[in-house]
Amino acid sequence: MPVTKRGADKPRRIVISLGGLTSSSMLSHQLELIHAVAPELLHAIDVNAEVILTHGNGPQIHMAQRAFAVASTEDPTVPPIDLPECGAMTQGYIGYHLQQTLAAEMHKAGKHWHVATVITQIEVDADDPSFGNPTKAIGPRLTKRQADSLMEQDASFKFVKDGEGYRRVVASPRPRRIVESESILNLLDNDFVVIACGGGGIPVVRDSDDLGCYVGVPAVIEKDAAAGLLGDDCDADEFIFLTDVDGAAVNWGKEGQRFLGDITVPEIHAYMKAGEFGSGTMEPKVRAALRFLEQRPDRVVRIGNVRNAAAVVRGEAGTCIHY
Amino acid sequence: MPVTKRGADKPRRIVISLGGLTSSSMLSHQLELIHAVAPELLHAIDVNAEVILTHGNGPQIHMAQRAFAVASTEDPTVPPIDLPECGAMTQGYIGYHLQQTLAAEMHKAGKHWHVATVITQIEVDADDPSFGNPTKAIGPRLTKRQADSLMEQDASFKFVKDGEGYRRVVASPRPRRIVESESILNLLDNDFVVIACGGGGIPVVRDSDDLGCYVGVPAVIEKDAAAGLLGDDCDADEFIFLTDVDGAAVNWGKEGQRFLGDITVPEIHAYMKAGEFGSGTMEPKVRAALRFLEQRPDRVVRIGNVRNAAAVVRGEAGTCIHY
Repeated sequence: MPVTKRGADKPRRIVISLGGLTSSSMLSHQLELIHAVAPELLHAIDVNAEVILTHGNGPQIHMAQRAFAVASTEDPTVPPIDLPECGAMTQGYIGYHLQQTLAAEMHKAGKHWHVATVITQIEVDADDPSFGNPTKAIGPRLTKRQADSLMEQDASFKFVKDGEGYRRVVASPRPRRIVESESILNLLDNDFVVIACGGGGIPVVRDSDDLGCYVGVPAVIEKDAAAGLLGDDCDADEFIFLTDVDGAAVNWGKEGQRFLGDITVPEIHAYMKAGEFGSGTMEPKVRAALRFLEQRPDRVVRIGNVRNAAAVVRGEAGTCIHY
Repeated sequence: MPVTKRGADKPRRIVISLGGLTSSSMLSHQLELIHAVAPELLHAIDVNAEVILTHGNGPQIHMAQRAFAVASTEDPTVPPIDLPECGAMTQGYIGYHLQQTLAAEMHKAGKHWHVATVITQIEVDADDPSFGNPTKAIGPRLTKRQADSLMEQDASFKFVKDGEGYRRVVASPRPRRIVESESILNLLDNDFVVIACGGGGIPVVRDSDDLGCYVGVPAVIEKDAAAGLLGDDCDADEFIFLTDVDGAAVNWGKEGQRFLGDITVPEIHAYMKAGEFGSGTMEPKVRAALRFLEQRPDRVVRIGNVRNAAAVVRGEAGTCIHY
């Protein structure tokens, strides 16, 4: 795993995992949301830090796959496309929205930094157990008829019952290696804000014919786990999850719900073991946070609301996890 | 326009504009084509040169837009999407295919270079005359009924009669500035093969509310003109067009057709003025070549078949234009 050698005089290096704002599949809505949070994000970036930004793509990757699947049945010039290519597409256009919007905010603030989006593959093990037992739900709830029709189109599709409907499930293998870490580090070392590993990265496995080569696989890497790997690869000092809630909470959705502020690793570990973070979107964040902190105890992890990003980075809002 | 300061000991810097192989909209076919030419491309790269690779996206950008347009009428979760986002998507997935395939060839050849895809915006003038007179045909020939139906869906769509059918036309403004040139140059200076400006770049104009910010516009920048701008921005020594024909030719498609080998600027300029390169795909290449050579007379431009890329780079095949 490549680790940048950084001197004591180097600025703080921060990985920001951007969730919450990409929960809309409508492009214009997505751009509006990014515009709305960009000033907050810029404040977060503007702390003499080196920043790598990663983001989710759950709704978008389903939208892209669905668009090509539906259109291919209507129009012979349109092919159905698979998850790796859909992932690359979403990295491209979400990255474009982010880099354009952040650069505009930087311009308004008189900054002369640059922003770059790097298309990122992440290696997973071909024998990762999740391939035999896909559980990562993607896209909207469908009716049984819709799900059956999609399975008829592509026998590799799997669906599970979720509430009143059915959601597609795919493998969610553990990320092992960021294939493009050299380009990310290179840009980061040269004062770029780097957008990378979007949607957890494009999952690839080593080619069985030649282990030095990669091929894409239809899977979705948990974006928080990918962000954690990114944090390690670039030897980050801080890891910040921006999401649509105000932090990690105990008694979530129940009486006595309480957001956690400043909290130590043993304390939050105990809450996780007790099942406080469920199996939803907070548990993977806490799990990635603990793994990140284990590697270097002087690190810090923050979890907070993307609409309050600047305060989260300054430690004035959200959950702050440390040893 | 940022120009890298390069010493006399620096390796040759080459811009390769990759056409010919991306003429299929089918993803699996595209990947097969890239696999087929990748060894040739690697030979082309393997000449102690710094390489920037750019590529077309004509069929793919139409395919993406068509997919979302068709699917949005069938499925409320899928929005129609506009050309800038489609361009960003195609940069993402064509870049993914190229970087994966080139890295595999490098591995097989025992090279330890890296490949990076940079999502690239290119600034155009908001008052470029082409916006009032769109002429760039994109996508397949459609029937009148299909064209009418698309115009009904989106009043900004324009079609022109082309042979027996109708093709969509969009503005093709002149590229003025590569917004992401700093990231491209930074990676290039650090021994990366950089994939950039795919499909002529994502066209953006300065925001009328704040001239320091950019917004996307529905247009397609001629990829050869964008590649020429890229060549200038990174002070390239050579500019190589890889396409699906063996070079520039006179009497194209007529009796006496003859491919041009070694040719000087005044000679090919005379052929262009005489209309030898028509208004198809060769004329923009020759035009971009002449502009590139005007800037620095010690430069060289080569035009040849992508399936023979190594020989084209070595000067053993194709057209070589110089002063």
